[in-house]
Amino acid sequence: MNAAAKTQNSPAETLESIETPALVLDLARVERNIARLSQRLESLGVGFRPHVKTAKSVDVAERLFASGRGPITVSTIKEAEYFADAGFTDMTYAVGLAPDKIARVQALVERGIGVTVLIDTIEQAQALADAAPTGNMPGVLIEIDCDGHRGGLVPGDPQLPAIAGILRAGGVELCGVLTHAGESYNCRNGEGIPEAAEQERAAAVEAAEFLRRHGHAAPVVSVGSTPTAHFARDLRGVTEVRAGVFMFFDLVMSGIGVCTPDDIALSVLATVIGHKPDKGWILTDAGWMAMSRDRGTARHPVDQGYGVVCDIDGVVHPDVIVTDASQEHGTVSVRPGSTASLPDLAIGQRIRILPNHACATGAQHDRYQVVRSGDREIVATWQRMRGW
Amino acid sequence: MNAAAKTQNSPAETLESIETPALVLDLARVERNIARLSQRLESLGVGFRPHVKTAKSVDVAERLFASGRGPITVSTIKEAEYFADAGFTDMTYAVGLAPDKIARVQALVERGIGVTVLIDTIEQAQALADAAPTGNMPGVLIEIDCDGHRGGLVPGDPQLPAIAGILRAGGVELCGVLTHAGESYNCRNGEGIPEAAEQERAAAVEAAEFLRRHGHAAPVVSVGSTPTAHFARDLRGVTEVRAGVFMFFDLVMSGIGVCTPDDIALSVLATVIGHKPDKGWILTDAGWMAMSRDRGTARHPVDQGYGVVCDIDGVVHPDVIVTDASQEHGTVSVRPGSTASLPDLAIGQRIRILPNHACATGAQHDRYQVVRSGDREIVATWQRMRGW
Repeated sequence: MNAAAKTQNSPAETLESIETPALVLDLARVERNIARLSQRLESLGVGFRPHVKTAKSVDVAERLFASGRGPITVSTIKEAEYFADAGFTDMTYAVGLAPDKIARVQALVERGIGVTVLIDTIEQAQALADAAPTGNMPGVLIEIDCDGHRGGLVPGDPQLPAIAGILRAGGVELCGVLTHAGESYNCRNGEGIPEAAEQERAAAVEAAEFLRRHGHAAPVVSVGSTPTAHFARDLRGVTEVRAGVFMFFDLVMSGIGVCTPDDIALSVLATVIGHKPDKGWILTDAGWMAMSRDRGTARHPVDQGYGVVCDIDGVVHPDVIVTDASQEHGTVSVRPGSTASLPDLAIGQRIRILPNHACATGAQHDRYQVVRSGDREIVATWQRMRGW
Repeated sequence: MNAAAKTQNSPAETLESIETPALVLDLARVERNIARLSQRLESLGVGFRPHVKTAKSVDVAERLFASGRGPITVSTIKEAEYFADAGFTDMTYAVGLAPDKIARVQALVERGIGVTVLIDTIEQAQALADAAPTGNMPGVLIEIDCDGHRGGLVPGDPQLPAIAGILRAGGVELCGVLTHAGESYNCRNGEGIPEAAEQERAAAVEAAEFLRRHGHAAPVVSVGSTPTAHFARDLRGVTEVRAGVFMFFDLVMSGIGVCTPDDIALSVLATVIGHKPDKGWILTDAGWMAMSRDRGTARHPVDQGYGVVCDIDGVVHPDVIVTDASQEHGTVSVRPGSTASLPDLAIGQRIRILPNHACATGAQHDRYQVVRSGDREIVATWQRMRGW
């Protein structure tokens, strides 16, 4: 296992000694979250193709599979290249393909990496068919729109067999269909997620069957989102589930009802740098540069501001949140309307902040400082990749 | 000049050939924006200490000064170290000092870098005094609160001379006072900014005079924000102005009334990856990972979504904005309520998107692709730094 980049021979770093702000990952929680979903999907008898866009880290991705390097989903070509360099050989690039990215995908296929790409237009199919004579081609999935949230074709759209026909004529393999239940992010406290999952399943299966009736095999039926993956009751006809944020979880997922704050594995370590007792503020060195500008809970029944404040060991200070942020300043105060009191935090004291959105907060940092629940020692430092 | 990291001998890259999404910087606009504020401050007879947190690039910072490497403001210790490595020798770290960052500041001072740090509590003053025997110390500015927006002490606060006394007893130099008119960001269309500037000036000068009456010299009186720097009518008693986003500008600054969209030097180059004609959407490969989650215009009279859409040459498509974003997908549509029509953009076509907040959008990228207005050729690629 490609673990850790800690400097040898230096004394152990801890949550008290590392520079702040810092991105802290609780490995015990990551392992628990991965086990939970893996076991669930296994019991449903469906394949698992986790999305690595949340973690963007080989060290995390290696822990997704009981052994070896299994199938993954990526959100950029650069992710595909990074994970290919680390020995992953089966990946789906789950963002609509820009024609000028075909050459970079071909280069991966030439290296022996199994890549499938996502399209939903005649133009993209034609661009792939046109490129086929120039090199080995990726497999293709057609994006299906199950709930009107992003791209994709509805299950009975006549463009489905038209796209399939163009690919076949060009000698490019159609692997199947893919959809994503964006609507599940609008659920709260678990309500409506089983229905969103069934809608996602039904749309993907219907589209695959429509293609099959037109003489195209469509062996892959790929669905997924973290909420629907945890609440689906039946995945008949689905071959694989994708999910990403499940491995870390966050306050948005807690608000949707998929996890509790105690499941959230990612936090930002911050240091107190000021007090404004007349305003009820504590100022820290974790502004939006460390937390991200994501305000994903703003429209939730419980608005978590820029994050929930915990002590250095990750114990939540009830109703204490980051209410405002500038680039390198965070303002900690009691949630508006709460009767809780602000903890007594001295200048220089350290806190941890649970993020709204793990994907966005993670992206603000170059590395994870890895701990195990309840212990302050940094057991590893893992790099994150970024860019396109 | 430390220009460009372009690969030699390769054909010229252009806005049509580089990978997307990409961060594009129009150097002609940067130069115009810098000249505008530099001349203004020169005519007001005040010093200039630009904030490099927006650009985080030596290549940009070198262009801030007619010659040499002048005084700068930084937002992290890592920025200070990065700019020190590039030959900058006079910098103010304008975020309240965490006591455990003193050692890194001392290391810079030992290298001959002139650093001033910012404090507003007795505890921070004592931590500096305690550290003085261990090495060369930075100069100190006391943060003044001019409008209740962040940290700082009000001008007549008795803690001001108390802090000054602790520093003097510890042999640490008090350089003066610093304030920031956070309230100016709540102005619209230029209204109220001259008043915010005067409030900022008056608070800083009053605090410095209060310290002087107590026997402390306080030679530095530092004020600044991009809005107040452009609207101040009189800066009597002020010795230096700080501003950062002015060099690039953005849609927030346009909404505040400090610039026009034609002044915005930063944009994100994106590629069209899909269409949803029934919804009036065009999908691109620039989601929030490329734009940031900053929705700084959400409470402006004109909400610009995740950014204003331009053609590849930077010409604005009127009332066409990025209305939604997921990690790697942007949804382009006509502004709600507008009668404008969506431009006819083909799959694979490229657009540019003006950002809400240059500091936040810049932070999502590792480098600038530099062009000159009206020309598609990439004349340089400049690296950005990040982290703490």
